[in-house]
Amino acid sequence: MASTTPSLLSGVVPPVCTPLTPDHEIDARSLERLIAHLLDGGVDGLFFLGSSSEVAFLPDTHRARVLEIAVGAVAGQVPVVAGVIDTATMRVAAHIQEAAKAGVDGVVATAPFYTRTHPAEIERHFRLLRAATELPIIAYDLPVSVHSKLGGDLLARLAADEVIQGVKDSSGDEGGFRRLLLATAETPGFSVLTGSELTVDTAAFMGAHGVVPGLGNVDPHGYARLWDAARRGDMAAARAEQQRLIALFGLVDAGAAERMGPGSSALGAFKAALYLRGIIDHPVTAPPQIPLDAAEVATVRGYIERAGLLG
Amino acid sequence: MASTTPSLLSGVVPPVCTPLTPDHEIDARSLERLIAHLLDGGVDGLFFLGSSSEVAFLPDTHRARVLEIAVGAVAGQVPVVAGVIDTATMRVAAHIQEAAKAGVDGVVATAPFYTRTHPAEIERHFRLLRAATELPIIAYDLPVSVHSKLGGDLLARLAADEVIQGVKDSSGDEGGFRRLLLATAETPGFSVLTGSELTVDTAAFMGAHGVVPGLGNVDPHGYARLWDAARRGDMAAARAEQQRLIALFGLVDAGAAERMGPGSSALGAFKAALYLRGIIDHPVTAPPQIPLDAAEVATVRGYIERAGLLG
Amino acid sequence: MASTTPSLLSGVVPPVCTPLTPDHEIDARSLERLIAHLLDGGVDGLFFLGSSSEVAFLPDTHRARVLEIAVGAVAGQVPVVAGVIDTATMRVAAHIQEAAKAGVDGVVATAPFYTRTHPAEIERHFRLLRAATELPIIAYDLPVSVHSKLGGDLLARLAADEVIQGVKDSSGDEGGFRRLLLATAETPGFSVLTGSELTVDTAAFMGAHGVVPGLGNVDPHGYARLWDAARRGDMAAARAEQQRLIALFGLVDAGAAERMGPGSSALGAFKAALYLRGIIDHPVTAPPQIPLDAAEVATVRGYIERAGLLG
Amino acid sequence: MASTTPSLLSGVVPPVCTPLTPDHEIDARSLERLIAHLLDGGVDGLFFLGSSSEVAFLPDTHRARVLEIAVGAVAGQVPVVAGVIDTATMRVAAHIQEAAKAGVDGVVATAPFYTRTHPAEIERHFRLLRAATELPIIAYDLPVSVHSKLGGDLLARLAADEVIQGVKDSSGDEGGFRRLLLATAETPGFSVLTGSELTVDTAAFMGAHGVVPGLGNVDPHGYARLWDAARRGDMAAARAEQQRLIALFGLVDAGAAERMGPGSSALGAFKAALYLRGIIDHPVTAPPQIPLDAAEVATVRGYIERAGLLG
Repeated sequence: MASTTPSLLSGVVPPVCTPLTPDHEIDARSLERLIAHLLDGGVDGLFFLGSSSEVAFLPDTHRARVLEIAVGAVAGQVPVVAGVIDTATMRVAAHIQEAAKAGVDGVVATAPFYTRTHPAEIERHFRLLRAATELPIIAYDLPVSVHSKLGGDLLARLAADEVIQGVKDSSGDEGGFRRLLLATAETPGFSVLTGSELTVDTAAFMGAHGVVPGLGNVDPHGYARLWDAARRGDMAAARAEQQRLIALFGLVDAGAAERMGPGSSALGAFKAALYLRGIIDHPVTAPPQIPLDAAEVATVRGYIERAGLLG
Repeated sequence: MASTTPSLLSGVVPPVCTPLTPDHEIDARSLERLIAHLLDGGVDGLFFLGSSSEVAFLPDTHRARVLEIAVGAVAGQVPVVAGVIDTATMRVAAHIQEAAKAGVDGVVATAPFYTRTHPAEIERHFRLLRAATELPIIAYDLPVSVHSKLGGDLLARLAADEVIQGVKDSSGDEGGFRRLLLATAETPGFSVLTGSELTVDTAAFMGAHGVVPGLGNVDPHGYARLWDAARRGDMAAARAEQQRLIALFGLVDAGAAERMGPGSSALGAFKAALYLRGIIDHPVTAPPQIPLDAAEVATVRGYIERAGLLG
Repeated sequence: MASTTPSLLSGVVPPVCTPLTPDHEIDARSLERLIAHLLDGGVDGLFFLGSSSEVAFLPDTHRARVLEIAVGAVAGQVPVVAGVIDTATMRVAAHIQEAAKAGVDGVVATAPFYTRTHPAEIERHFRLLRAATELPIIAYDLPVSVHSKLGGDLLARLAADEVIQGVKDSSGDEGGFRRLLLATAETPGFSVLTGSELTVDTAAFMGAHGVVPGLGNVDPHGYARLWDAARRGDMAAARAEQQRLIALFGLVDAGAAERMGPGSSALGAFKAALYLRGIIDHPVTAPPQIPLDAAEVATVRGYIERAGLLG
Repeated sequence: MASTTPSLLSGVVPPVCTPLTPDHEIDARSLERLIAHLLDGGVDGLFFLGSSSEVAFLPDTHRARVLEIAVGAVAGQVPVVAGVIDTATMRVAAHIQEAAKAGVDGVVATAPFYTRTHPAEIERHFRLLRAATELPIIAYDLPVSVHSKLGGDLLARLAADEVIQGVKDSSGDEGGFRRLLLATAETPGFSVLTGSELTVDTAAFMGAHGVVPGLGNVDPHGYARLWDAARRGDMAAARAEQQRLIALFGLVDAGAAERMGPGSSALGAFKAALYLRGIIDHPVTAPPQIPLDAAEVATVRGYIERAGLLG
């Protein structure tokens, strides 16, 4: 299952939250502190402008600013990949061009959305993106947002043809994930990463190359310990760390489902935790998301206190 | 059911196709000819950058070019509205700003998509857009793309508060459409338009203010006759014209469902028909859509021949 | 568009509610009174064991009892059709056999559900049912429950081959409904009925053969007047009656969406209205549906008072 | 995480295929042979009338016959549970009564389907079932069929209140599965089983009590070895066995997706494999499923040959 070509991404690659000021501008100082916090945590790569980064909420100027800050602050210490999330090929290609200019090491692209796209058109989409850039492309499988699933055969074919250099699987289809791992095991340099922060120990056991944990913003050290234990083959230690992080993950439900969407609750909770930990200056999410109220922030505080992450 | 405030949009308001060159640039001359064709057909307004305009496939530079050409070519003869389709509030607001600069008369906005947005957040989205612009805002209800439905109570509330000045209903929920018509009947200047090209006669009978027919690109004269008959109360004539257009509408299925998405088939067929009628120079759709093949174009030709639209 | 073969179903064919006793047995006397009320209202047929009859909640013994009472009470005054709603072919065929024994005039069947069924298998399903019975079969298109849509081509083919003798369309796809009407206009004796109680005037105008209005339980006289006006070509009168019924339809939202499903609210409201009108003895719905509370019943009372249906 | 109350179900509990004769009657001798094959394979329990048993396709007489044969053939060697799959509470309760009469050890019930049921109504459903039987109830979470997901909080509450005695999770939500395992870890005698045949090693590692593998019909010995290795803590051996079974699992895609649903392909392949292995007499699936053709059966043969299961 090993290959000699090094893959772009492996290990713990958090999708970095995007700190905002109260008037919804990029909070550069907070973003730099967050990046330092993640690097200090021992992460292996950083993914900017993903769903956990509120990419869908950010105008292009904000996106450009994030990448500018990110590339500068990371300064080559770990690989930086950028989400190029948009509705269809030409729009995604425009984001890729901007990301390339910013100096990222790779891009992360979904299938088209908003449109109803045939699998053959999804395949064409990725092949056209490949023709448009030299950068490594990670396919992002996120049916909850994109409303289509990237098929296992399609991904294996795109991997074999070197159209894509990896997959971030947030589909929740663990069987499909595992079949993909086996199908691409011989493809040199190909990375398969899970987007599930609750099954990192088992994903590693299955042979996954890495994880993209939203919760890794809050506790990168925990994910680094978890991944390290799994890599050493100490599955009991990995499981114990994973179970600690599962308990912490409960904070994503802090926001009342009657008042806000599940994303607003989770992203609001991540940012509240980072704020309470002193890493970012404002627990502000982008509009039109409803913010957590004081009681909900107190709930988040309880979670991070119990996880030993305060003070 | 009458009101004295004139509404921005009424009658036949086609969502204008976006002609492209073979290398996927905006084909300005074809777009100007298409606009002339639609105005000649007697349309009452024009909607650029909607779903039928392939807005989701077009980068921002293309979007800007379309509006520039459109505002110039229409030159105030009928109202021009622009789709400001994007994933969430700040991105939509950026498009509104561009559309305002281009000089459009109103904008058409959906609920957020890609994100999972709570109804309260959808309401906040529209209220924030209202705070960001002086332009009339038409809410676009398109669950097949947006994956959420705008509730009738929400729309009535936004109408009463003058947050939105109209609705384009492409939800296919005729009962909800009708309840909305009754609920907003006393709201001055509020427009409710149907996006269904197959039920224009009955929509007019229910009190709808207008229609946004994709097929109106191909046969604007037919839709103008249909609307005119319905407005005169000649329902039998309206129905006969509608049934003729329903037969013509069969061309949207020209593309093989095994090879392409339903949108690619419909938009490919509209453009093929416009090409065969000599109105646009290239029957080209934006990537990654699969184009119609020669046999499929011949199918389209059969439809427009039988409809008496060739030669 | 006319044919000489008489169709089984036309006009107003309410899906008859199933009155229950407080311990959830069939309330025979109430059902007989409800049937008398509907016949007095001037309905043209009766549909038992449909979704509005809570068929999915009733065990087979209840289903048999309903048909026994129904066939006896209707006594041939109008056609009686029975829902044979179940997950797949052999189960549906067993219900058809029971319905035939009970003496109904036709059956109403959906595509398979619970299973994920290919369109070719849906077609096979209806063809196997045809082979299993002499009774007319009405195809029931209800994607909200069945989670697949009966395609227009499939229905037209089944109609042409005399596999099915009609369609009850509750899909909400008015364009598809209309295309189906045109596609089957020459098929002798074929009925296309709409399940939407809010667009009966326009469905009649389009050429629909009838309507299956759940709200027709509450106000059959209104639907009979509406249909009669539409049939006479008095569209203004039909529309006025339809708009009165749309206002009445508001009662379906009486139940709080925070506490119960939309079906529980609508069926609870229909039964509350029938109870308040003195037609059934108990406003009881089948478990596990949450019943309306007193305030919600008062809301229903307001609707039927305003509609002039009380006292 | 251990408890002293023994749980009803643990280990490998295949959902037993239902062998049919060519005229779609229950093939008793084949079913008996299949049961013997599974017991010989070392399974820990048997689940009849689940989705893999084609329960949704079988009339009640077939269901009764299956349980009669099953209880007789198993004769107490392992626990027998029966699916009581139906649309709502009273129908499910009727199946429970039949299953109890047949002498099963527990029942497996889903949330209501076909109806649109509120979470509070789903909870009421399970509580009413509990009131109706003494038998252990396993909640079956199968959103792909039921179109709603059983929430983690709901399941934990039903477990704590002893309404349900276990969960069979076929939701594919591994994070939720794991959170449920942790939330119910202290509930005496409560079983959490995974329905995914591709992640049994990792499910065991997470603390799952057992697995319900459809593929276990074809290779029960493999699943028994896998479970045994995992239980011994020999994760490397478990993974090797799991990967062998993942390769074998490829047979579920033998049927062409253009011709049949995914269930028809998988169930057709399981039965073809059992037929080729000489365990059942006919590779017949229930209508309206499209059967595998000769080439597709040959594909299945290839899989079981490569897995060393032929001859």
